[in-house]
Amino acid sequence: MSSPVLRRQMAKDLSFSQLAWGAWRLRNSADIRNTGDILELIHACLDAGITTFDHADVYGGYGCEVYFGEALAKAPELRRKMEIITKCGVALVKDTRPDHRINHYNTTKAHILQSVENSLRNLATNHIDMLLIHRPGPLMIADEIAEAFNELRRAGKVRHFGVSNFTPSQFNLLQSRLDVPLATNQVECSVLELAAIFDGTFDQMQQNRIHPMIWSPLGGARLFNTENDVAAKRLRPVLERMRDKYALPGIAEVAIAWLLHLPCQPVPVLGTMKAHRITCATQSCNVQLDRQDWFEILVAAQGHPVP
Amino acid sequence: MSSPVLRRQMAKDLSFSQLAWGAWRLRNSADIRNTGDILELIHACLDAGITTFDHADVYGGYGCEVYFGEALAKAPELRRKMEIITKCGVALVKDTRPDHRINHYNTTKAHILQSVENSLRNLATNHIDMLLIHRPGPLMIADEIAEAFNELRRAGKVRHFGVSNFTPSQFNLLQSRLDVPLATNQVECSVLELAAIFDGTFDQMQQNRIHPMIWSPLGGARLFNTENDVAAKRLRPVLERMRDKYALPGIAEVAIAWLLHLPCQPVPVLGTMKAHRITCATQSCNVQLDRQDWFEILVAAQGHPVP
Amino acid sequence: MSSPVLRRQMAKDLSFSQLAWGAWRLRNSADIRNTGDILELIHACLDAGITTFDHADVYGGYGCEVYFGEALAKAPELRRKMEIITKCGVALVKDTRPDHRINHYNTTKAHILQSVENSLRNLATNHIDMLLIHRPGPLMIADEIAEAFNELRRAGKVRHFGVSNFTPSQFNLLQSRLDVPLATNQVECSVLELAAIFDGTFDQMQQNRIHPMIWSPLGGARLFNTENDVAAKRLRPVLERMRDKYALPGIAEVAIAWLLHLPCQPVPVLGTMKAHRITCATQSCNVQLDRQDWFEILVAAQGHPVP
Repeated sequence: MSSPVLRRQMAKDLSFSQLAWGAWRLRNSADIRNTGDILELIHACLDAGITTFDHADVYGGYGCEVYFGEALAKAPELRRKMEIITKCGVALVKDTRPDHRINHYNTTKAHILQSVENSLRNLATNHIDMLLIHRPGPLMIADEIAEAFNELRRAGKVRHFGVSNFTPSQFNLLQSRLDVPLATNQVECSVLELAAIFDGTFDQMQQNRIHPMIWSPLGGARLFNTENDVAAKRLRPVLERMRDKYALPGIAEVAIAWLLHLPCQPVPVLGTMKAHRITCATQSCNVQLDRQDWFEILVAAQGHPVP
Repeated sequence: MSSPVLRRQMAKDLSFSQLAWGAWRLRNSADIRNTGDILELIHACLDAGITTFDHADVYGGYGCEVYFGEALAKAPELRRKMEIITKCGVALVKDTRPDHRINHYNTTKAHILQSVENSLRNLATNHIDMLLIHRPGPLMIADEIAEAFNELRRAGKVRHFGVSNFTPSQFNLLQSRLDVPLATNQVECSVLELAAIFDGTFDQMQQNRIHPMIWSPLGGARLFNTENDVAAKRLRPVLERMRDKYALPGIAEVAIAWLLHLPCQPVPVLGTMKAHRITCATQSCNVQLDRQDWFEILVAAQGHPVP
Repeated sequence: MSSPVLRRQMAKDLSFSQLAWGAWRLRNSADIRNTGDILELIHACLDAGITTFDHADVYGGYGCEVYFGEALAKAPELRRKMEIITKCGVALVKDTRPDHRINHYNTTKAHILQSVENSLRNLATNHIDMLLIHRPGPLMIADEIAEAFNELRRAGKVRHFGVSNFTPSQFNLLQSRLDVPLATNQVECSVLELAAIFDGTFDQMQQNRIHPMIWSPLGGARLFNTENDVAAKRLRPVLERMRDKYALPGIAEVAIAWLLHLPCQPVPVLGTMKAHRITCATQSCNVQLDRQDWFEILVAAQGHPVP
C-alpha cells in the first residue's frame, strides 16, 4: 500500500488507520445527497488508506448509522475492508425517541445491549469492531457496563470496547471491572483545545500504551474563524507558514500533523464530507514536523512561551 | 423490619443504615432542650431504621458527644442497637481547650489516641464503630495515623477507620499505609454541591467498592433560600414537581433520594433535630427516581444541559 | 559533624543534605566575581553541612555549570565531598545555541545523552549524582527517556534519576517505564506558592517515600516585596514574630523551617550567593516549629482560616 497513513494497533487483533473518518456530519452536509455519495466517500477513504469509520447511535439525530448502512448494503464487500466504531450511552430528545423527555445518559446493561442491536441493524453489519461509551455519566455503574461488554463480546457482536470523554479516574474505574483492556478513549483535542495534553488524559493513554482517538481535531470551524477567536488569530499565520514550509495543502493538514506528533500516537477523526479533503488530509501523515516548529505552534496556541 | 431504609455494608463485619443521623447541630437547636429530647430523637431514628449516628469530637464546640453520651447513659441498652461514628484531627479554639491559639489540624498519634479516649468517655461507650480523620491536613503523616489506627483496633476501642473531606490522592496515601481498607470518605455533596460527583472522589469510592458518607446533603439551608441563590432558584420548581410526582413529603426528600441514586451508594447524614423530619426523610429510601427525572434535577443544578 | 543540617536518603546508596545549594543565579550575582568566590561559597556550604549542589544545563544561559566546573577543577578534592545534581530537557534560545529558534523542550534520547556529556565536561566531573528531567513536555516519550537513563546508568555517568515540575500523572508515566525508582521531583513551593501541598504532588511523594526538592523556597524576591504583594504583606508580620520567637536570623529562615516541617521531608534549594546567608539558612534546620505556629503561617499564606 502506498498510502502514507500508518496503522495503529488498538488491540492484539485489531488495528485502525492512523486517521479515521467520522460520520457525525453525514446527515447535514450538502455534499451528501444520497447513498451513492456515501459510497464515493467510503471509496475515497479506503483508497487513501483510511479504513476506520467512526459512528455513534446519536449522530445526525439517530440518523447517520442507518444512512451509512444503506450505502454499505449496496456494496457489502466493503465491510471487510473497514473497521467500524460506534458509540452508545447518550440519549437525546428526538421525534423517533418519544420516551426521551430530556437529553441524558444511559449506560444500563439493557440500554447498551439494545443500542448495539440497533446499531448492528442500522449499519447493516453483523459485528461492531469497537464500541465506545459515548459520555461518562454520574449514574454510570461500572459493573453493569462490564456485564454488557462481556455479553456482547461473547456473542461476537462487538470485538473491542472503549470510552469517550472519560477522565483518567473514570477510565480507571471502568477498566477495574474489565478482563480486557479498554482499547481507546476518544476525546477532544486540537490546537484550539489543549486540555487533554496537560490534564493527565494523554499521560494515562501513553502509560497504558493506548492510542486515544481525537474528535474535533480542527477545533470545529474555529480554526478558520479568526475574526473573533484570539487563539485562532494567533495560530493562523504560524500554521500558514508551516503549510508553506512543509508543502501541505492547507492549515488543516498542519493542525492534524501537529496532533499526530503527540507521543500517545492518537487517531484523529476527520469530519469532512468531501472526498478531495480526505486525500489532502492523508498528507498530514507524511510530515515529519520539526520539534521547534511543533513548539512554535504550541506557543501560538497557548499565547505564551513554554515555562 | 418494615423500614424502607436499606443497610450498607461498610466492612465485612459492619453495616450502616442507608441514612445516618448527625449530631452536628445537637447543641444549638431549639428542639433539643435536654437529654430526654435526645433520647426521643434516638428512638425516632431507631424506629425509622436509622441506626447510624455520626459524631465528631469538635461538634458543638466539643459539646455534642458528651450531651449525646449523657442521654445514652440513661438508656444504655440502646448502644447495641446503633453504630457510632466519631471523628478526630480538627483542633478548635475554645475555652475548654486553652492550649489552642488557632484553629488547626492535629493527626499525631498522641492526639488521635487522646481524642478517642475523650470520645469514648463522652459518648459513654466502650468502643467506636468507625473513627474518621475529620480533615486532611498538610502536616498529616500517614505512617503515624496508621500506627494510631492499629493500636486502637488492637485495643478494641475502634472497630473500623475512615476519612472525611479527603481528595483521592490523600485517600490513596493513607490507604497505602494500612492493612485494612478505609471504610468510608465522608464528603460534602448535594444538588447544590456537585464536585465530588465529577472530580474523581466518587469514582474512587465506586472503584474501591466503598460507600461514601455525605454531609450537608441538603446544602445547608441554601436549598430553602431561593432569594439570593440562583442554583436553588433553578432547582426549587423542579424539586417541587418531583415531590408531587413521587408523593414525597418535601423537596428535602427529593434531594436525598437524588443522592441515594448515585452508583457509589452513599450514606447521607441527616442534620435534623426534629423527630418527624426523620420519619419523613426515610421516605427518600422508598423512591425509584426515574433516570430522566434524575437528569432533570442535575440539569437544574448545573444550569446547563448535559454535553 | 556539629551541623544541624540532617541527611535525606534519596536512594539506597545516595543521601542529600537537608538543604541544597542551587547554582541558578551564579552567573548574575555581584557576589560572584571569579572562581575564587565560587570556591569560597562551596567551602561555606560544605562547612555548614550542605553537600548537595543543584545545577541545570540551562542555568545562567548555559553558563553556570562551566563556571562552577572551573572552580571545582582548581580544588578537585572537593568533588567527593559533594553530591551534584543537574538537569536536562529544556532548550533555550542563546547565542551559543544557534540552532535554537524558540525556547522548547527536548527529551529525546540523543538530546539527553548529549546534554549529560556537556554537563560532565562543564562540571569537570566524571559522574552526575542525580540527573533530573527539567520540565515535563507534551512530546515526552517515556520509553525513550527510560532508554537514555538506562544507558547513562550502565555507563556510570549518572547514578540516580529524577524529574522536576512533574504532575503526579507525568511522574507515574515515567516511573512505569523504569526499573529503579525516580529519586525526586523538584518543584516550586513556598509560603507564597502552596499548590504542591494541596494538589496531590506532595501526597504522591509521601506515598512513594520520596523526598521532593523545592525550588524558590522563598518565593523569589516576593517575600521581601510587601509593597504590592497582598500575601507577602499578610505573611510579613507573622514571619517576623516567629523569627523573634525562635531566635532565627531572619524571616527567610522561618520560611525554610516551615517547609522542612512538611511530612514529605523536602530538600529546599537555597539560591543565595552569599556565604553568610548559607550559615544563617542552616539554622532553619534547628527549629522545632510548634504545630500551631506552623498553621498560623499557613493561615497568613492562604488569607483564610483552615476549613
